[in-house]
Amino acid sequence: MDNYSVVGKRTINRDAISKVTGCATFTGDIKLSGMLFGKILRSSVPHARILNIDVSSVLKLKGVKAVITSKDTPLKKYSIHPKMADKLVFEDERVRYIGDEIAAVAAIDEETAKEALSLIKVELEELPGVFDPVEAMKDGAPVIHDNCENNISKHFKMECGDIEKGFSKSDFIFEETFTTHGQSHCSIETHTCIAQYTHDHQVTLWANTQAPHPLRQRLSQTLDIGLDKIRVIHSHIGGGFGSKIDLDTTHAACVLLSKKCGKPVKITNTREDQFTATRIRHPSICELKFGVTKEGIIVAKQARTIIDNGAYNSHGPSVMGYHNVMFSSLYRVDNISYEGFLIYTNKNYGGACRGYGDPQATFAQETMLDMIAKKLGMDPIELRLKNANHPDEKTANAVKITSCGLRETLEAVKEASNWSEKRKEKRKYRGLGVASMIYTGGGSRGSGFNYSGATIHMDSNGTIHLFIGATDIGQGSNTILTMMTAEILGVEPEQIRLTTSDTDTTLPCMGTFGSRVTFCAGRAVSQATDNLKEKILDQAAEILREPVDTLEMKKGKVFVSGSPEKEVAFSQIGAVSYSQKQKALTGTGYYDGPEIAPDFDPKSYYAYPGPAMAFATQLAEVEVDPATGKVEVINFYAAHDLGKAINPIMAEGQIEGGAVMGFGWALSEEIKFDNGRIMNPNFHDYQIFTIKDIPKIVSILVEPEDPQGPFGAKGLGEPAMVCTAPAIINAIHDAVGVRIKDMPANSEKIFNGIKEL
Amino acid sequence: MDNYSVVGKRTINRDAISKVTGCATFTGDIKLSGMLFGKILRSSVPHARILNIDVSSVLKLKGVKAVITSKDTPLKKYSIHPKMADKLVFEDERVRYIGDEIAAVAAIDEETAKEALSLIKVELEELPGVFDPVEAMKDGAPVIHDNCENNISKHFKMECGDIEKGFSKSDFIFEETFTTHGQSHCSIETHTCIAQYTHDHQVTLWANTQAPHPLRQRLSQTLDIGLDKIRVIHSHIGGGFGSKIDLDTTHAACVLLSKKCGKPVKITNTREDQFTATRIRHPSICELKFGVTKEGIIVAKQARTIIDNGAYNSHGPSVMGYHNVMFSSLYRVDNISYEGFLIYTNKNYGGACRGYGDPQATFAQETMLDMIAKKLGMDPIELRLKNANHPDEKTANAVKITSCGLRETLEAVKEASNWSEKRKEKRKYRGLGVASMIYTGGGSRGSGFNYSGATIHMDSNGTIHLFIGATDIGQGSNTILTMMTAEILGVEPEQIRLTTSDTDTTLPCMGTFGSRVTFCAGRAVSQATDNLKEKILDQAAEILREPVDTLEMKKGKVFVSGSPEKEVAFSQIGAVSYSQKQKALTGTGYYDGPEIAPDFDPKSYYAYPGPAMAFATQLAEVEVDPATGKVEVINFYAAHDLGKAINPIMAEGQIEGGAVMGFGWALSEEIKFDNGRIMNPNFHDYQIFTIKDIPKIVSILVEPEDPQGPFGAKGLGEPAMVCTAPAIINAIHDAVGVRIKDMPANSEKIFNGIKEL
Repeated sequence: MDNYSVVGKRTINRDAISKVTGCATFTGDIKLSGMLFGKILRSSVPHARILNIDVSSVLKLKGVKAVITSKDTPLKKYSIHPKMADKLVFEDERVRYIGDEIAAVAAIDEETAKEALSLIKVELEELPGVFDPVEAMKDGAPVIHDNCENNISKHFKMECGDIEKGFSKSDFIFEETFTTHGQSHCSIETHTCIAQYTHDHQVTLWANTQAPHPLRQRLSQTLDIGLDKIRVIHSHIGGGFGSKIDLDTTHAACVLLSKKCGKPVKITNTREDQFTATRIRHPSICELKFGVTKEGIIVAKQARTIIDNGAYNSHGPSVMGYHNVMFSSLYRVDNISYEGFLIYTNKNYGGACRGYGDPQATFAQETMLDMIAKKLGMDPIELRLKNANHPDEKTANAVKITSCGLRETLEAVKEASNWSEKRKEKRKYRGLGVASMIYTGGGSRGSGFNYSGATIHMDSNGTIHLFIGATDIGQGSNTILTMMTAEILGVEPEQIRLTTSDTDTTLPCMGTFGSRVTFCAGRAVSQATDNLKEKILDQAAEILREPVDTLEMKKGKVFVSGSPEKEVAFSQIGAVSYSQKQKALTGTGYYDGPEIAPDFDPKSYYAYPGPAMAFATQLAEVEVDPATGKVEVINFYAAHDLGKAINPIMAEGQIEGGAVMGFGWALSEEIKFDNGRIMNPNFHDYQIFTIKDIPKIVSILVEPEDPQGPFGAKGLGEPAMVCTAPAIINAIHDAVGVRIKDMPANSEKIFNGIKEL
Repeated sequence: MDNYSVVGKRTINRDAISKVTGCATFTGDIKLSGMLFGKILRSSVPHARILNIDVSSVLKLKGVKAVITSKDTPLKKYSIHPKMADKLVFEDERVRYIGDEIAAVAAIDEETAKEALSLIKVELEELPGVFDPVEAMKDGAPVIHDNCENNISKHFKMECGDIEKGFSKSDFIFEETFTTHGQSHCSIETHTCIAQYTHDHQVTLWANTQAPHPLRQRLSQTLDIGLDKIRVIHSHIGGGFGSKIDLDTTHAACVLLSKKCGKPVKITNTREDQFTATRIRHPSICELKFGVTKEGIIVAKQARTIIDNGAYNSHGPSVMGYHNVMFSSLYRVDNISYEGFLIYTNKNYGGACRGYGDPQATFAQETMLDMIAKKLGMDPIELRLKNANHPDEKTANAVKITSCGLRETLEAVKEASNWSEKRKEKRKYRGLGVASMIYTGGGSRGSGFNYSGATIHMDSNGTIHLFIGATDIGQGSNTILTMMTAEILGVEPEQIRLTTSDTDTTLPCMGTFGSRVTFCAGRAVSQATDNLKEKILDQAAEILREPVDTLEMKKGKVFVSGSPEKEVAFSQIGAVSYSQKQKALTGTGYYDGPEIAPDFDPKSYYAYPGPAMAFATQLAEVEVDPATGKVEVINFYAAHDLGKAINPIMAEGQIEGGAVMGFGWALSEEIKFDNGRIMNPNFHDYQIFTIKDIPKIVSILVEPEDPQGPFGAKGLGEPAMVCTAPAIINAIHDAVGVRIKDMPANSEKIFNGIKEL
């Protein structure tokens, strides 16, 4: 048993009260003196050459203060992969999807700005579009980006072991193709930002970004503004799920409009903007070939994947990298081959979306495993246990696994769900399905960095103040990180004052994505706090005239172990250090890992692994209505290896939220395109799971302490949804015998499937 | 010759462009979502018992959201001297001056709030008032504060040497009485603040304060709110001159109103509020007795001073302390006696005001010296040179003088003004006058503290970011402090990103007053920057594989001395340190001095001296119109020992601004009372000097490097106005023979004086 006072305790989210009482400030709540409102003109056709943009009538409309086009930009392309940058702030020669940005205006109110957009005359020469990645790869298909024949943005091949030898040693070969569809992040708060570009060329951007520090960097590069001139500030954030990591044209347009008007400018996406002009989860096609022995050991596995990039790269290349790494690392398989194609189409482009390529890979692999288990007549949990990863191993694709609770998650859902009993006493139209997953538990160094910094001060009156670059987007990192500090210093978490990511006042942090904050920011915070603790103890030792190693900290005091009457309060330590010793009490922490393993070959393995890997198994019990094909999730069990759970109540919250997002992706959510046009850009036609659709979710925390993680913790945010869909889809097959290989498993497909049985 | 690249160079104020283009954000520019507006009900009589306050009709007015009285406060008294706290946020039993706070309201706009004030029914029993401190000290005078007989808030006596022996050794004894009057600070921006008290009991206060960190502390104490729950933020500030140091009822009322409404509340003083409900410069009566030898050596000096406190203490006790210390320290005098009385009256109360008691003392002493010089037939400059302080001495009252350029300032104005020639060829109605002064050049530890902290980061891309608790109120500390950092790191000052005083993001700093920022914050900034420089050099040494002691820094690079081709850019040092070494580059600096000299007796000497003393001599040439008594300042020479001038152009700006404030105090500015009521609370009736009244001011910088000051610098802000008035008043005597001993030297007094000659 650990001996923690704060860590591991069910602790209320420190932002809860301000959020439920409505006093938390979101970016949308911010008003600046003289603030104008911006709107963006977006392409209404999927593919066209821009012949002319005439903005001459726009400023004649009363209340319009500025109009900008590509001519007002330095024409620098951006992407999260600098070497694969392909997107301009405003396109100057060609539009490539319905939503592509052409111009922007600023006016005294949103209505006037909207009216002003209609006065911009854009002359276009329409070009044939291509919307299917397989079509797009064919010779003669419309070329979306110059010099990109067959629309292949990225092609990648990797082999570990000997794939052919592997297949030849197999008793059974399985070959299947799986496809997945686009999903929207559906954050409750749409993208909003306010830029203030002042005459002394200082830029402040308030934005609901997941990654203020990288956003600052990308703004600097894309707009040719010195990094030292830019400040990015975020307020509370109403969800991100990956959609708010990147530089977006709204940010750049806001800055340029503000520069042109000399006034602050705000741009707020409507819900339709959010659906049609922000990123989506990449659709994919995944052809799998598995070689398995009759005992159920996977000897070889091969994937050939096409990722539908949409019109631009954004995160595409690394989403494909993660698709590969996660597919290849799950289970102990010696012989692996992976080939990936990232293909441009004239559609909304993909971006980071909770799971980052892994849900697509896991859907394919875990459905395949279910099919293999069926074929071998083996319990699907047993099959997974036979192939499960172990702690302290290195996978064939060189991913270092330290802590690993995969086996325990399989056993936990089995027990919690009463799996063995239930499978025996099978009820009609009811089924059970299981799926597992691997994901990074602390980001990765895929882009060369995985940094998080923290500073901490003890004030002259003993108050503790923590500064973190990490961003709480609702997931609770503010609570988790202050709990770590509170644990180390022996105070209550609510006593810790917190400043979060404003690029001016916090050390750099890559931001909130990749399930990295608990791990990486946690490492930084722990290090900073340890560093401060040392200084506090040194000062206390001097005051108490006792050796440092006899001292303990608790309840805002330092005292001599075993002689608690020999004590000194934090307030006095602060006062003495600042006022008598003229020494500020500050600590610094910085993490940027993991170090790359010496035998790791980035060329062939493509994406670096994370510092720790998280595992999970989820188990769904569904009931299918044969009359409609509608699936109801009756019971849901989610066992997650998250290392040490810093705050179990919030971990459960993440698991529940992840599962719900997975339910939607599996069953109801789908971005529907018609010739490149999104047909359902609203919550009426695009259906997310609501409170009435959600069953009780049983969260099980498996906590093998990770040797590198702060207090043994690992990340959980994305794993929570990665294997939800295959668990449900496997349960559907168990219930009615319909095997869904092209997601989503909507009622129509199941109804038709049942008819065709 | 120093070898500095940045320090000492005429550098444009880094805030100049944003201010002249109107894009600098002041507190008044801030709008928050749902923001309400507050107004304060103030007493309209000078002295009364509060019988009842009836607020029952107030909330019936549409648009009024809250009304508060003393019942909504914890009834804690405040002051900058905690042991002498005598002011409540809202008075509950008695009002003591016209302007005393009784209640406050918040409403949807200022007009409604104003109307709401008229609905508060206050039942008062008027009491006799006393407005003259001499009357107030008499037995039987109305007692303003319970248990404070004769209205003496503080009585203080000090003697150094043997005063009677001193007088007995003197050839001449001079006895005179000098009086000074109230002055308003006249900051262009009035007091403004916005409080946001959220449901989770977090308080943010945006205020144009000179001292955010102490304001946070006083808010905490006065309102019983944990220090860790309060954040104070300031924007650009339109002048302070001492008026914006303290907690004010506007701040506390804003917080309490916001707490009551659950909405942010803004209070902005009108100009009339500013005149009638903020602090003033203390009026004073100073009886001097000087003993002098026939050679002009001051053997003994004695002062008996009455400081007119007004209704409450505020800074009164320490203003009296400074009056004593500065009076006693100027010139080498062995035998000194000082007696001070701080007296309550039913008038607006005094506070900190540029010079802090010293202008009153210096007016008295320097006019006295002029009279002595006349009597002895001695050149007034010669008289001062004979008695001038020396470097590295300790005065009789234990003030440690390190650097001292008093002698040089006397010689400098003499030469620049052509003093000797001009005195010979005297023109009618023209006269020359001179006055010197001593003042702290870096605050003092009078309150037990004199702290300033700074932190500095090098970002992973090499950007330098400085964080200071000090507040730029227009005097230019943002520029001065970044120049120091730029000098140490070998970069341009405008390349340094700066975050200033937000209590959440900066180390504590006492704030901007006491001419302390250049010295104290400068010490902190230099220390922090040296600390960072060391870390940068260590990292550079590792990259270059060269010993640290062979390295130099310039232009954003580190290179090997003599082999500039062996270089590494800051950007690379940042990248390597953060990303490869996983080390953040940060530095910390903290100053809180000086240490109290071991032989210093705080009981008898009352106020601690500063870490360094500044000196000045100013010389005025005036012309008097005998028909009207109007004085025109024709030429003005100001020689200031400010240690090393970090930025001469801004030092000159301070000297010019100080002189203009001194002109106003000497000649035109006077708060006129009638039975406790200010009769001229506007810029029509209260006349400040404007651009058309101001002569060319010749600033002379005397720069003996101070051994403790950062780069040898000392403070200058207050010294700039301390001896202006006596220089002018001595010049008036020289011009027309009228000796003004009761300030101001307005036309009426001079006209009458000429008639009476």
